[in-house]
Amino acid sequence: MIGGKKLIGTFNDLLNYASELKGRRIALAFANNRETLLAVIHAKKRFSAEFILTGDNDFILNELKELGENLSSIEIIHCPEPTLATRTAIEYASNNKADVLLKGGIDTSTLMKLVFDEKYNFRKGNLLSDVFIFEYPERAENKLVMITDGGLILNPSLNQKIEIINNAVAVAHALGNLNPKVAILSSSEFVNPKLQSSVDAEIIAGMNRNGEISGCCIDGPLALDSAMIPESAREKKINSPVAGNAEILIAPNIETANALAKSTTYFAHYRLAHVIIGAKVPILITSRADKSDAKLLSIALGIIMSETRKRLTKK
Amino acid sequence: MIGGKKLIGTFNDLLNYASELKGRRIALAFANNRETLLAVIHAKKRFSAEFILTGDNDFILNELKELGENLSSIEIIHCPEPTLATRTAIEYASNNKADVLLKGGIDTSTLMKLVFDEKYNFRKGNLLSDVFIFEYPERAENKLVMITDGGLILNPSLNQKIEIINNAVAVAHALGNLNPKVAILSSSEFVNPKLQSSVDAEIIAGMNRNGEISGCCIDGPLALDSAMIPESAREKKINSPVAGNAEILIAPNIETANALAKSTTYFAHYRLAHVIIGAKVPILITSRADKSDAKLLSIALGIIMSETRKRLTKK
Repeated sequence: MIGGKKLIGTFNDLLNYASELKGRRIALAFANNRETLLAVIHAKKRFSAEFILTGDNDFILNELKELGENLSSIEIIHCPEPTLATRTAIEYASNNKADVLLKGGIDTSTLMKLVFDEKYNFRKGNLLSDVFIFEYPERAENKLVMITDGGLILNPSLNQKIEIINNAVAVAHALGNLNPKVAILSSSEFVNPKLQSSVDAEIIAGMNRNGEISGCCIDGPLALDSAMIPESAREKKINSPVAGNAEILIAPNIETANALAKSTTYFAHYRLAHVIIGAKVPILITSRADKSDAKLLSIALGIIMSETRKRLTKK
Repeated sequence: MIGGKKLIGTFNDLLNYASELKGRRIALAFANNRETLLAVIHAKKRFSAEFILTGDNDFILNELKELGENLSSIEIIHCPEPTLATRTAIEYASNNKADVLLKGGIDTSTLMKLVFDEKYNFRKGNLLSDVFIFEYPERAENKLVMITDGGLILNPSLNQKIEIINNAVAVAHALGNLNPKVAILSSSEFVNPKLQSSVDAEIIAGMNRNGEISGCCIDGPLALDSAMIPESAREKKINSPVAGNAEILIAPNIETANALAKSTTYFAHYRLAHVIIGAKVPILITSRADKSDAKLLSIALGIIMSETRKRLTKK
């Protein structure tokens, strides 16, 4: 339960909940890009969010006009140079003048370099990680399953894995899942001293049992099938609340998370949303390959995650 | 073309080709297991292979009788003790008295320990790797795509990755694909000195351009979408015959291959077959979780790979 809300267990729940939240401000880093402006227009129809667009004023106005869009709830800050536009958007997010940072027509590496620029204190010393969510149609209760981190942390150390877990657990909590089932993935269920991912998994699961990692229920090492498929967990005789029912999949490395997430999208055709968390506000790195559904869902996720910060700030 | 055969581009082609091959002998390591005996019965209906079953004679006879099976093309070697039965099956395979080694009611780690036992000279000093094949329905021409290695090599070095590639390429050649498109997977298309998988991919692609790795066409680093999805390859402006059309996916590590392969099975519900190659004969480690279709396809793959050895031996 979040503020009287029930579990957000599907992407439709996610859209509905995000559309109930009022007064969220989304800063768009370099809006000189028709595709991103289309996403803004779609999001405006669905949510009550306000958009702060940085970029070339004339270009943006012209594009919006061509797309038949009025300018209600849209503020344009004229900075035609991409890097300056991005810096401006980050400053807004860092200074509490925006609740979500959305990437526009700038490449991800440039945006992230600026996000990590210490002068904005936007990172607050935290680890930033990408949380990918897919909707798993074959599950009854909570269909939203997370995969992390497939975008930012190249060779996660044990400590970084724990921060990756905490970031994902924060997303689960924001979605009303207060004790998410976390699977630490490896290639099998056995601890092999020669396979670091299996050793780390064992340590992390132990730290969870000892209460050193809390707010979730962790099991590992688990292979994908024993984490996600109840029959596999049963056949392998793994007795844990997580096995077969995992809601967060912690990948052993960036390549596994990236390939697994892309496999759910391109092979299984599951719907998806993703968000980078750990910074002062959620960051949305929608890519050109993302369909409009994925962009809308990611914006909804960003709005909801910003709500979490609101509530935390009020405390 | 193999011996006048065209490309084996689907699993039905695979079944048909395997059923044309005569006189293959399959040694079953410890047949005291109803599930494996069922697979044998299915395979006997489809292929003309002969089976050499090691295990408890009375148990096996009784099970086969209960399953309504006659004993044509079945030889039973009485060794009721599982390890001894497995050793006997390996000896048959090692001494050219069997063309395929099939795991029965013994666990994989026990079998593999014996496979690696130098006294059988079964490994011949080669690297053994698991080649997983899925049938990708969204592709027109060759629908069979390989993922490797998700089962045996924990932390593949550059040299081991090259051996993994050569093993997979040998399977492609046996399936009539004489110049397979090989993608070296990483989490993106960029070489990052801090991410070994991307560095290795660049080196391997270079070695292929220089002719040091031959019999295939290699590109990398590629993320899964740029390897498999033509639209992604086009959007990312990657110009190579491999991008968007990969037929062999070389994973950066065992966890990525394992999760990706399981995702094609359990999320996308693609058909699958897999075989361990590198030893004197192909080894089939069908697991309890494999459906009967996967078992039959894997046996077909084993029969075809043994045919390759036959042809090589004749030279």
